[in-house]
Amino acid sequence: MKLASLKHPDATRGNATQGRDGRLVVVSNDLAWYADASHIAPTLQAALDDWDRLSIDLKNLSTDLEHEMIPMRRFHEHDAESPLPRAYQWADGSAYVNHVALVRQARAAEMPDSFWHDPLMYQGGSDGFLGPRDPIPLADEAWGCDMEGEVVVVTGDVPLGASRDEALAAILLVGLTNDVSLRNLIPGELGKGFGFFQSKPASAFSPVFVTPDALGDWWKDGKLHRKLMVDLNGQPLGRAEAGEDMTFDFGTLVAHAAKTRKLGAGTIVGSGTVSNRGPDGGPGKSVAEGGVGYSCLAEVRTIETIQGGKPVTPFLKKGDTVRIWAEDDKRHPIFGVIEQTVE
Amino acid sequence: MKLASLKHPDATRGNATQGRDGRLVVVSNDLAWYADASHIAPTLQAALDDWDRLSIDLKNLSTDLEHEMIPMRRFHEHDAESPLPRAYQWADGSAYVNHVALVRQARAAEMPDSFWHDPLMYQGGSDGFLGPRDPIPLADEAWGCDMEGEVVVVTGDVPLGASRDEALAAILLVGLTNDVSLRNLIPGELGKGFGFFQSKPASAFSPVFVTPDALGDWWKDGKLHRKLMVDLNGQPLGRAEAGEDMTFDFGTLVAHAAKTRKLGAGTIVGSGTVSNRGPDGGPGKSVAEGGVGYSCLAEVRTIETIQGGKPVTPFLKKGDTVRIWAEDDKRHPIFGVIEQTVE
Repeated sequence: MKLASLKHPDATRGNATQGRDGRLVVVSNDLAWYADASHIAPTLQAALDDWDRLSIDLKNLSTDLEHEMIPMRRFHEHDAESPLPRAYQWADGSAYVNHVALVRQARAAEMPDSFWHDPLMYQGGSDGFLGPRDPIPLADEAWGCDMEGEVVVVTGDVPLGASRDEALAAILLVGLTNDVSLRNLIPGELGKGFGFFQSKPASAFSPVFVTPDALGDWWKDGKLHRKLMVDLNGQPLGRAEAGEDMTFDFGTLVAHAAKTRKLGAGTIVGSGTVSNRGPDGGPGKSVAEGGVGYSCLAEVRTIETIQGGKPVTPFLKKGDTVRIWAEDDKRHPIFGVIEQTVE
Repeated sequence: MKLASLKHPDATRGNATQGRDGRLVVVSNDLAWYADASHIAPTLQAALDDWDRLSIDLKNLSTDLEHEMIPMRRFHEHDAESPLPRAYQWADGSAYVNHVALVRQARAAEMPDSFWHDPLMYQGGSDGFLGPRDPIPLADEAWGCDMEGEVVVVTGDVPLGASRDEALAAILLVGLTNDVSLRNLIPGELGKGFGFFQSKPASAFSPVFVTPDALGDWWKDGKLHRKLMVDLNGQPLGRAEAGEDMTFDFGTLVAHAAKTRKLGAGTIVGSGTVSNRGPDGGPGKSVAEGGVGYSCLAEVRTIETIQGGKPVTPFLKKGDTVRIWAEDDKRHPIFGVIEQTVE
């Protein structure tokens, strides 16, 4: 089953609550059609709040849509909000430890060995996300705006102290994100010791979130086994395999988040920037050089720094366009496409 | 106007979405009575989402309640959830820099001078809060469970890059929190560089949130000018003046949060642990010694460490009870009372 939230027409005409959360629709597997689902649950959050009961009706609707048995309309990704236009929790891990090690290496910061055993995770802002085709608002290019291509999952309720298996069972949806980061604000902010705040503005999510069962073999061992496609200004930047080099699977990440408190339904947990090592174990090559490339500019700049002493590739500037997606075997996007231009 | 969210009877009978967010009521100024407000907005979040329109109706209801012109029922704080039982954002500052300086001094960590000019703030978990009379679930006493008595504000929508004045104008409600902290997990977690996550389990908020206009002179210059009362097991622990030694007022804190992204309606911003210096500028005395005491145990232990080489007061144990409130001139609680026992 694939779910999306359409931009709500009431958003500009007074019914502010519903407008803020979009309108829930079920989307066909090929992303060509949708059926309204608001008679089952007005919003995706409402569906997640009562998933055991409502997901049955949603799955029936999804089946009817695939069989073209119900009224359906063309699905346009431009009309979609992020599936959760705002959420009660956005917890982002750093599961591709390779990425962390590289970034630290470039700024000559030591990475403790514990990072290979104990997941790194930060509490992200979740009060408002960008739509998948919305521009990235950037007030100051000097902040060093970067994309981060990641895989995300959405959970139901997760009990306090959940095991990895309990956490895996609580994963209801899978999607992608562009976790926008302001790189030049990070060192100062992390130096203060309280983690990210100003350096992590609103993220955008893929137009469609997908249930794990609909992913078949692509969802295995708590990982998405597809390439994460990242383009910058029409050129391939990243083709990293999301199922490889992920040190902590999503079950481990969700269990980490639930160690000292239960998690509420609709919690989004991120993988951190998808990153593969090179075949020799070192930093991978760019796509132009025949490698799988990178899912963020910080990693490009890191490798430039390691190899040439300083970064060459600039951070995002006004007018730059980022595309993030994953494909099925016929090269159709699975989750739709995140496509954002910096403004 | 005073607002609360009653525990929703549907929480245990299937209507999961409404049950999770409680039922909005308007509470009388003396906290003795309430009037149902769910015909205006089912939940406090719904009211905040459309505040310009709905707050007019809520204020009329509040006036009618004070004049006993409408059906009203006894208000029992035990029946209340936190006013926002879950929220889209919980951003906690450290505005009483005195507290930060003391805690750092005790663990021999240097505090940069910039902390006096640039607010410290972390992104807290907001997917589920404890009710004001709910127990504090603690799986392991070795985690070092502590209370933190704080003042909080709830904002409407705040534009990206809001000035302090714009931020002040966006403050719609004022309340209190017990920001539960797991002290022994903090050093390891902050050492990883990504801020708090496991070390900050669910917080609890005062039964009632109050509009700034209803606070009169107690709300001035973006600060609450009342004593924050903190008791531990029936003994006074803290009587600090929330309006004093607050280096960053709430306008400055909210503007800090909005520097790189707009804030969604219903964002809760915290002051950090309320803390006063002693009359000589150094650490203050305990209430038993005639001082204003402390709003968390970490500060008690810090002062014990500075004075005697090691902390003596233990962190919270099972069965310990914490009370946090603020009083009007007749010693009636303004926001109701947070009273929680560790389980």
